[in-house]
Amino acid sequence: MKDTSIFLRACQREETEYTPVWLMRQAGRFLKEYRALRRRFPFLTLCKTPELAAQVTLLPIERLKVDAAIIFADILLPLEPMGINLEFTKGEGPRIHNPPRSRPEVQRLRAINAEEELPFVMEAIRMVCQELKGKIPLIGFSGAPFTLASYIIEGGGSRDFVRTKALMYKDPSCWHLLMEKLSEVIISYLNAQIRSGVQAVQLFDSWAGILSPNDYEEFVLPHNQRVFRELSAGVPTIHFATGTSGLLELMKEAGGDIIGIDWRIDLGEAWKRLGYEVGIQGNLDPAVLLSSPKRIQRYVKEILDAAKGRPGHIFNLGHGVLPQTPEENVIAMVEAVHRLSRR
Amino acid sequence: MKDTSIFLRACQREETEYTPVWLMRQAGRFLKEYRALRRRFPFLTLCKTPELAAQVTLLPIERLKVDAAIIFADILLPLEPMGINLEFTKGEGPRIHNPPRSRPEVQRLRAINAEEELPFVMEAIRMVCQELKGKIPLIGFSGAPFTLASYIIEGGGSRDFVRTKALMYKDPSCWHLLMEKLSEVIISYLNAQIRSGVQAVQLFDSWAGILSPNDYEEFVLPHNQRVFRELSAGVPTIHFATGTSGLLELMKEAGGDIIGIDWRIDLGEAWKRLGYEVGIQGNLDPAVLLSSPKRIQRYVKEILDAAKGRPGHIFNLGHGVLPQTPEENVIAMVEAVHRLSRR
Repeated sequence: MKDTSIFLRACQREETEYTPVWLMRQAGRFLKEYRALRRRFPFLTLCKTPELAAQVTLLPIERLKVDAAIIFADILLPLEPMGINLEFTKGEGPRIHNPPRSRPEVQRLRAINAEEELPFVMEAIRMVCQELKGKIPLIGFSGAPFTLASYIIEGGGSRDFVRTKALMYKDPSCWHLLMEKLSEVIISYLNAQIRSGVQAVQLFDSWAGILSPNDYEEFVLPHNQRVFRELSAGVPTIHFATGTSGLLELMKEAGGDIIGIDWRIDLGEAWKRLGYEVGIQGNLDPAVLLSSPKRIQRYVKEILDAAKGRPGHIFNLGHGVLPQTPEENVIAMVEAVHRLSRR
Repeated sequence: MKDTSIFLRACQREETEYTPVWLMRQAGRFLKEYRALRRRFPFLTLCKTPELAAQVTLLPIERLKVDAAIIFADILLPLEPMGINLEFTKGEGPRIHNPPRSRPEVQRLRAINAEEELPFVMEAIRMVCQELKGKIPLIGFSGAPFTLASYIIEGGGSRDFVRTKALMYKDPSCWHLLMEKLSEVIISYLNAQIRSGVQAVQLFDSWAGILSPNDYEEFVLPHNQRVFRELSAGVPTIHFATGTSGLLELMKEAGGDIIGIDWRIDLGEAWKRLGYEVGIQGNLDPAVLLSSPKRIQRYVKEILDAAKGRPGHIFNLGHGVLPQTPEENVIAMVEAVHRLSRR
């Protein structure tokens, strides 16, 4: 019989019968049913209709046999009630048409009451919890202040984040004001998710790894620290970013019960540097899921070996599952994690 | 009086009066005169006309007071004689219209004789050397096998390198064949540059940092090792990549007298891990040059402090100088490096 709390016990760094596993973007584009829904509804409609968001959240659970669900939403949703016009263009990802890049523009950004202004997320959480009946836990999430700030300033995705850094360097007080406003929104948003029923939360600081350690310390660390400090106690927190081999100690200082890493560092090496008083999540390269079950199994084993069966490892990819990933390869990955980690 | 061999002596890890400095892409888009030339000539014409390539190479030398010149060329030039059609589209960067992605396509790629098939590069090198009269050394360069392979397979630049990884994983023998062919071309190309007069060479493995340590070891390391092994002895070699905090030890194993790093790791930390029997190059974030001379000076000092005045540090950016960089900020950076490092 499946232990229903295996993910939460791993978050507390308790011994578990096997290593729990879930995938970032497991309820997304790589699923046939999701793509079918997307042909019928625009992306933001899926996010803002609780029945649909709940349905998408639940899509992968039975089929993939993952040990946690994650609420279907987009990290940019909280920006709209702040006064930012968000559009999802086909193929190009998010576009922000009024990117605030000056102090008066940043000052105009509004604080939000997440329960009132993002009620659809909370309703979707309640619906999913009811449906899951505690079989597996539900994870809530938010973008971290830096990652949200970078989308806002760049007006969308970016490769080199030059506008973001230029603002940081040229007008540090405007930067910190923006980060404070975003931190408050994120705290309100995550605490509302916790009140609505999520049993763990992940802070996605996906792009923080483009900063030097000194810049991270000056421009990001105090804000992430505040976010973790002001989250409701009692649910485990996961602090995720990519390309953070140079930032691990600072990420730990910023907070989180579990640090999420990508594949660009050996998991054993990363955990040793972090210390075993925090858990670790990761770290398969999503591109490996484009290969074969045989190669996937080999890579899963290498990661499990690096974790050495220590309590507190949650298996995941190092970033979101790629849209072109064959479903059977994801199933093979989850099966391999469960089988090869069984104590 | 300026010591004309300060860069080369730092490459040998000898004590120098101050830390030498040059910038990746110092002969490029951030210079007004370069942009004026580009309005008159297409990019590939600049590369393939020795007089123009030599002129561009020399543009920044007097003005910026850098301690080394680097030949103006593009890392993709050696692909053309291999049989790959290269185009530089306005604003979008390089496009390859016949990307070889299967074994027969890879088999058809030709070996090259760099002296005969890239004579314009060699001629430009000879012209620059004559002009410099040994005042400062000239650096030659090439893309590394992995970075060239990724451009070839993706058909241009990429963000996630999924096609490249998919080929690696699904058809390792085709991958290794491509890497062998590229390695041979690179060895021929760099040795021809050395014969033409460059006094140091840099291998740009710009994108290797997107790989996991295990994948780097399996798919890249043996090829880079071969390249460094088969380069003509006697000129210092710089091995550069970005985002390599998780790969430093493996990069050192691959070769190079100096390891070039980006800003995403503390330089002192990186050098300690590498060991002081290799030199280190880096590592200012190019975006810092968009700020003010005051901030630039602070960051320069932090990097010099991290290097602790050990012999073998070459100051550079962590990646190419950004096109929108004000020239006076680059001058301020070079001046700060020279002044603050003077022993």
